[in-house]
Amino acid sequence: MQDNTGVALTRRQLLGRIGLSAGGAMMYQAMTSLGMAAESSYTGPVKLQGSPKGATVLVLGAGLAGMTAAYELRKAGYKVKILEFNARPGGRNWSIHGGDTYTELGGATQHCGFDKNLYINPGPWRIPHHHRAVLSYCKQFKVPLESFVQVNFNAFLHNTEAFGGQPKRFREIDADYKGHISELLAKSTKQGALDKAVTKEDQEILLESLRNWGALDRNLSYVMGEESSVRRGFAKYPGGGVSGKPEHSKPMRVEDILRSRLWATLAAGNNYEMQTTMFQPVGGMDQIGKAFARELGPGVIEYNARVTEIDQDERGVTVTYEDTTAPGKAKTAKADWCVCTIPFSVLSRIPVKVGAEMAEAITKLPYAASVKVGLQFKRRFWEEDEAIYGGISYTNLPITTISYPSTDYHSPGKGVLLGAYIWGLNAFDYTSHTPEERVRKAVEYGSQIHPQYKQEFDNGVSVGWHRVPWTHGCFGQWTEQLRERYYGAATQIDGRIAMAGEHISYIPAWQEGAILSAHDMIGRLHKKVMATGGAA
Amino acid sequence: MQDNTGVALTRRQLLGRIGLSAGGAMMYQAMTSLGMAAESSYTGPVKLQGSPKGATVLVLGAGLAGMTAAYELRKAGYKVKILEFNARPGGRNWSIHGGDTYTELGGATQHCGFDKNLYINPGPWRIPHHHRAVLSYCKQFKVPLESFVQVNFNAFLHNTEAFGGQPKRFREIDADYKGHISELLAKSTKQGALDKAVTKEDQEILLESLRNWGALDRNLSYVMGEESSVRRGFAKYPGGGVSGKPEHSKPMRVEDILRSRLWATLAAGNNYEMQTTMFQPVGGMDQIGKAFARELGPGVIEYNARVTEIDQDERGVTVTYEDTTAPGKAKTAKADWCVCTIPFSVLSRIPVKVGAEMAEAITKLPYAASVKVGLQFKRRFWEEDEAIYGGISYTNLPITTISYPSTDYHSPGKGVLLGAYIWGLNAFDYTSHTPEERVRKAVEYGSQIHPQYKQEFDNGVSVGWHRVPWTHGCFGQWTEQLRERYYGAATQIDGRIAMAGEHISYIPAWQEGAILSAHDMIGRLHKKVMATGGAA
Repeated sequence: MQDNTGVALTRRQLLGRIGLSAGGAMMYQAMTSLGMAAESSYTGPVKLQGSPKGATVLVLGAGLAGMTAAYELRKAGYKVKILEFNARPGGRNWSIHGGDTYTELGGATQHCGFDKNLYINPGPWRIPHHHRAVLSYCKQFKVPLESFVQVNFNAFLHNTEAFGGQPKRFREIDADYKGHISELLAKSTKQGALDKAVTKEDQEILLESLRNWGALDRNLSYVMGEESSVRRGFAKYPGGGVSGKPEHSKPMRVEDILRSRLWATLAAGNNYEMQTTMFQPVGGMDQIGKAFARELGPGVIEYNARVTEIDQDERGVTVTYEDTTAPGKAKTAKADWCVCTIPFSVLSRIPVKVGAEMAEAITKLPYAASVKVGLQFKRRFWEEDEAIYGGISYTNLPITTISYPSTDYHSPGKGVLLGAYIWGLNAFDYTSHTPEERVRKAVEYGSQIHPQYKQEFDNGVSVGWHRVPWTHGCFGQWTEQLRERYYGAATQIDGRIAMAGEHISYIPAWQEGAILSAHDMIGRLHKKVMATGGAA
Repeated sequence: MQDNTGVALTRRQLLGRIGLSAGGAMMYQAMTSLGMAAESSYTGPVKLQGSPKGATVLVLGAGLAGMTAAYELRKAGYKVKILEFNARPGGRNWSIHGGDTYTELGGATQHCGFDKNLYINPGPWRIPHHHRAVLSYCKQFKVPLESFVQVNFNAFLHNTEAFGGQPKRFREIDADYKGHISELLAKSTKQGALDKAVTKEDQEILLESLRNWGALDRNLSYVMGEESSVRRGFAKYPGGGVSGKPEHSKPMRVEDILRSRLWATLAAGNNYEMQTTMFQPVGGMDQIGKAFARELGPGVIEYNARVTEIDQDERGVTVTYEDTTAPGKAKTAKADWCVCTIPFSVLSRIPVKVGAEMAEAITKLPYAASVKVGLQFKRRFWEEDEAIYGGISYTNLPITTISYPSTDYHSPGKGVLLGAYIWGLNAFDYTSHTPEERVRKAVEYGSQIHPQYKQEFDNGVSVGWHRVPWTHGCFGQWTEQLRERYYGAATQIDGRIAMAGEHISYIPAWQEGAILSAHDMIGRLHKKVMATGGAA
């Protein structure tokens, strides 16, 4: 089996994760679990013992890995400097705000027309509660956090091939799926199907639990009644006074639920990285990158610096770069040591003086494709018309995801949705379109779920990660085979050059991986520096 | 079967809801589903056609029902006045802030020692996304809302009789319960147990879904491995660089999960009123009551007014009351019509001139007991030590619930927990203790789940609702029999007196019920006024 990057994936790796139900909506789930389902192994603040005696470190890239390395190494006594391609800190820690301009590979420039207070996060957009490293910096740097709503029982599940293309509320599918499997298991139990596996006493507890958990009636059936309506919602909701008497709703049939395949995303919020409580920084994910830059202070980061060559010898590292605002003139920076956080997708196109093993690793890591589309609408119709506040609707359409803002509830002005979060083959397809075309298609597809789209659409932006000039892809897509063969080489300190970033971690695509890779690396680098006597 | 109020409950009503597993922690769930699992039947802003020609309405109680009635009736042209027992608006819409003082029945006075920015909501503390009436007023009155975290996968489930009294993380029980029942159903299916109920084709989809949803391996088993660790968490979590390789965790045995009974609260967040997205007003639930009072403007509400008698004749209503700040002197207020939102638990002790049917209804409605305890700690150890941000831990101890603040994450100062949310018999027991004793016991019990309690405890407040002077109970506890017999009489407009409040609704205990009962009632009252020509 081949994925879109041409890399062979085992059946276990891909289908095992997708649950044999690969499709647009499922790719998202699959991607988030490819090696990424992980709690932080952060063990507390970095402590580097011993003075480096003025040793200098040149950091390439002011993303979270690079800024973490610079921040912690400076605290330990190093002299640090960062070269950054962009005119801003953060790297993939990035928010596009109203008024921003972004030019992708190929030259297409977008001027974000969002209202001034609105934004979209093209890269990371949510933080699990167990990503302790990134959270500890948020706390330390006083980056205010708010809840990110991952699961919304009132959001939609949509499959063009089910229920005539009509979306269902998450709660209906969730309640009915659980109710039906509980009933099936209860009946099997009563018929003796579990007699070999479970004691009679435990079977009694099991039945009791299924009744409670699956909302079964006294006969252990999942049927129309108060028990099921309390989960799936009512046909007529209770109210006040004389007019308030409720009416129960009718569960869907088990075969309709199964054949709809809408069960496929029910467990998205049960994946470790998606489990409540999740966070987002108030005002955009870029608040974290900005906080790091603020803590580093002026003069540490040189922006608009495009690295063109990385050289080293026994005495130090020399990096050649150009100022992208005054191109054509090579500049150089020298240091005793180099921390390189440039994604391998970019680094593989730059001469780097490292050993054959690391050099091969740099060329072998494919980068996942992903496209996000942010859509501004004239009003927050999802709140006003549909009582959807935050959370995610899933669809089998190429957009896979519509995510609603988890903040500024009830704000009377315009609102911005994540209108598409595209993975795999569809992402390559979308990346090849113009930004305007990506937006147009996101609106067209999304209107199958929210008919208000066409009337209320205002403007949009889109980021196809393979067209992002400083990454050429979304994240390092390690497979088991690739990791076994190349991860060790990629991770070793090669002479005076060490790599860091999400790609040098077991939590790819996550900010936590970037920060923990920096923590792991600076510990080893410092040890080496201390062993070699600090400065060259 | 008798509940603690002496009212007969049917087996279906009580046990059916509790899932046969009545116990401390389960009571909470049971109470929230006794007639309360309901979406709003709000149909949009109130529109009353035709002028009441200066008719006057006296509203008794400035809770949400009374203020809603006054606000909407005034908009329709009525002259309104509210008499309120407390020195503040809101009634059970109430937050105790640092610096507040509260005296309960029996005379015990508490001075809340919380830090100034901290509070506890003794009454309603969360708003479902489908409670459209209360949310529409929040939007209209610009009450800022933030997410209330109901389900937290990292919070604890605790049973003194299970796992040696050691709490488990919600995620571990949730993943293992779902994994095991999925495996049991998958194996039953493969053995032919479903052959009569489900077609072979649907069985294949079922197996596929169980594998995906239950995190089963390729053999449809729930075992130690990546699939299960991705849900229940890892033994060693993935990290960065060379040190980041993860190790899988080991699922618990099915019999241990079943016998622990910790499955009993897994579905709490699946109940319609508890489904994400939920809200709380920024700064305390009392922000809603304050907003209503602000919109009503000065002079509409007379505070510190204790109603002692309600009289009516064909021409109007006369209410006798006293100013509690200058007691002993009877005052009177007259109006054409009266909207009475005084809880029946209090009203039954006041002479009220209504017909025999309504008079009987007033005396027959029992009020549920409930106790809440708010605890301030010297630091937010639940965040710092345990990565618990918001959400709820459940226990079989009398406290039933520990709820963590869903706001000000990472704030460096003190923090306030909901340290107990007690129902049923235990609530009566706790109500009989002094406030200090309730707090002491909440700390003692809670320290079985959080050992940090003893070291970090700072101070606390507690509210036993049967000792609240203006309610004598928590909410009107309709049973099916009581509702059949008395609800109709309680709801009818008796001459010139109409009742409103959560007890005059099918959504008892919820603010939505109070507001919708007011909406329903004023529609009927206005019709009657128009039919009788407005003012008397």
